[in-house]
Amino acid sequence: MLRDGKLPRTVSLDTCRAELVIIDQTLLPAELKLLRLWDLQSICEAIKKLRVRGAPAIGVAAACGLYCLAARYTERESGAFMKHLSDDASALNATRPTARNLSWALEVMLRCAEAAADGGVASILEALKYKAKAIEEEDVAVCKAIGEYGEKLLKDGDCVMTVCNAGALAAVEYGTALAPVYVASEKGKRLSVYSLETRPLLQGARLTSFELTENGIDTTLICDNMAASVLASGKVSAIFTGCDRVAANGDAANKIGTYMLAILAKHFSVPFYICAPYSTIDFSTPTGGDIVIEQRSEDEVRSLWYEKPMVTEKARIYNPAFDVTPAELITAFITEKGIKVPDKL
Amino acid sequence: MLRDGKLPRTVSLDTCRAELVIIDQTLLPAELKLLRLWDLQSICEAIKKLRVRGAPAIGVAAACGLYCLAARYTERESGAFMKHLSDDASALNATRPTARNLSWALEVMLRCAEAAADGGVASILEALKYKAKAIEEEDVAVCKAIGEYGEKLLKDGDCVMTVCNAGALAAVEYGTALAPVYVASEKGKRLSVYSLETRPLLQGARLTSFELTENGIDTTLICDNMAASVLASGKVSAIFTGCDRVAANGDAANKIGTYMLAILAKHFSVPFYICAPYSTIDFSTPTGGDIVIEQRSEDEVRSLWYEKPMVTEKARIYNPAFDVTPAELITAFITEKGIKVPDKL
Repeated sequence: MLRDGKLPRTVSLDTCRAELVIIDQTLLPAELKLLRLWDLQSICEAIKKLRVRGAPAIGVAAACGLYCLAARYTERESGAFMKHLSDDASALNATRPTARNLSWALEVMLRCAEAAADGGVASILEALKYKAKAIEEEDVAVCKAIGEYGEKLLKDGDCVMTVCNAGALAAVEYGTALAPVYVASEKGKRLSVYSLETRPLLQGARLTSFELTENGIDTTLICDNMAASVLASGKVSAIFTGCDRVAANGDAANKIGTYMLAILAKHFSVPFYICAPYSTIDFSTPTGGDIVIEQRSEDEVRSLWYEKPMVTEKARIYNPAFDVTPAELITAFITEKGIKVPDKL
Repeated sequence: MLRDGKLPRTVSLDTCRAELVIIDQTLLPAELKLLRLWDLQSICEAIKKLRVRGAPAIGVAAACGLYCLAARYTERESGAFMKHLSDDASALNATRPTARNLSWALEVMLRCAEAAADGGVASILEALKYKAKAIEEEDVAVCKAIGEYGEKLLKDGDCVMTVCNAGALAAVEYGTALAPVYVASEKGKRLSVYSLETRPLLQGARLTSFELTENGIDTTLICDNMAASVLASGKVSAIFTGCDRVAANGDAANKIGTYMLAILAKHFSVPFYICAPYSTIDFSTPTGGDIVIEQRSEDEVRSLWYEKPMVTEKARIYNPAFDVTPAELITAFITEKGIKVPDKL
């Protein structure tokens, strides 16, 4: 997961054993445990339950996972094999609706299998293995490139604010929003980060604070409602967030709270950057209003993590996992193809 | 606590037994338990640990508590008695720094004692008892008046957003920010409320949702970072919050997250009202920059309520209990003396 090799990759394909290897993020920061998965139910459960999460990471997990499933198919005829593959891809795609990367990675895998289908099952499997591993390695390269472009925006002593986890734990390595911080740090710039805890799943508290401090970055955790107070202090140089899906017009869906941060950034004249692989841009979705926003369980707000429920059963709970930040509030997108303003994607 | 008498007052003086009676709010919503207190250590602990909280309620608790302490003094000479009283008032005043009401109530009690000192200890005690009870009853009247002014801003079907708890549990009855909702509801208007959970102490989750639904108000709880998403939907007619201290220029200190809400309100053109007794205005504090902001323990963010700590020990945590909303973001103050714009307090 981390650049110096101290910790494993967040998600990886073990090609020898055809097993998907992930860090179980539901156990962090208390325990760092690797899971090895190879059946449909376990892989779907891992994505749904956020054992692996983050738009790039679930794309890689789905691609690698699909290969691991295919490696165990008993079908020896291309048509039946492809049918099974397509069904499993649909099941994986249905686990979470918002992130573009999930469907993107599965589409790439299916196209790759179709291209190899004439050569028979062995040929399809070989193609899927190399494609899955390529998607994994490409994610590393893409995140590194985002980091290289982003770090140019940061100078020694700067302070960055971020929400959720769009770091190494949201990708294979480096991450998206935190890649500029890591690359800048590798180049000797001393940076500090304010991490929003990101209710209700606390990715900022559990994951971002963990990976940043493990990498020696000066990190201060705050509750989501403290962002205005910190921004008003003038300490923050820039806000960097990740992204789950960008519409063609530059509206961007990301973790709930991102929209709030973008409005605060405008109010306090702090630049607001979204860091994402170019594959996160969904040119088939015209505007943010067309992005499906995942609604999650009331229990995540009422009782998850707690010793006892914190909200009366008589109250309703609204729990959208994402919000959509309008393009006009986004200073720029930092992608592996460079820094792009929203109306020139 | 509630208007129909189903539940007890949040804070009250039992004059017969000279005991301060409070609802232990740290146990809500799971358990409704009354505490009876009469010694300095227990009363200070109750305020510090937020067993009783909310600016108006801690003012009443301090006034009633001071009488309960005085009723047990062994000094029979006015000078020694007054010295003891002054020392206890200082100890109570030191429990929490931000709310104006705490120091205000204690100053009123000390002045009252001084005025009665010529008549001896029995005379002082009698004066303190009636003054404490008067402060308790006055709080009810003030909150009711705030509710009467505020409800005129609400029409049938309106939806209100609020943060923290500035309801009946933050005062003796009715509360401040929720008083307009309760009064409007008594007049037959059907209202709904979005309550922000208010990390880290979850007053919105534990207290506001509890008291609103117990009173039959349609209530939806959201995490603090979901406010922008809800406001963007256009459902919210107005934001009502309480307040801990208003500076002479109209800047207002209130629960952390209020500043964020005020900026969002401006962005989405939703009126932003602060509801507070006139005694919350501190004309001796020129601007918001002069208000002392209480910094609370890292543990409130890292581990409180949770089954296990959620943040690595390697990360620092910033935990201000309040923020200061600049006057220009406040549509108006709703007080018992009427609705006032910030530059005409």
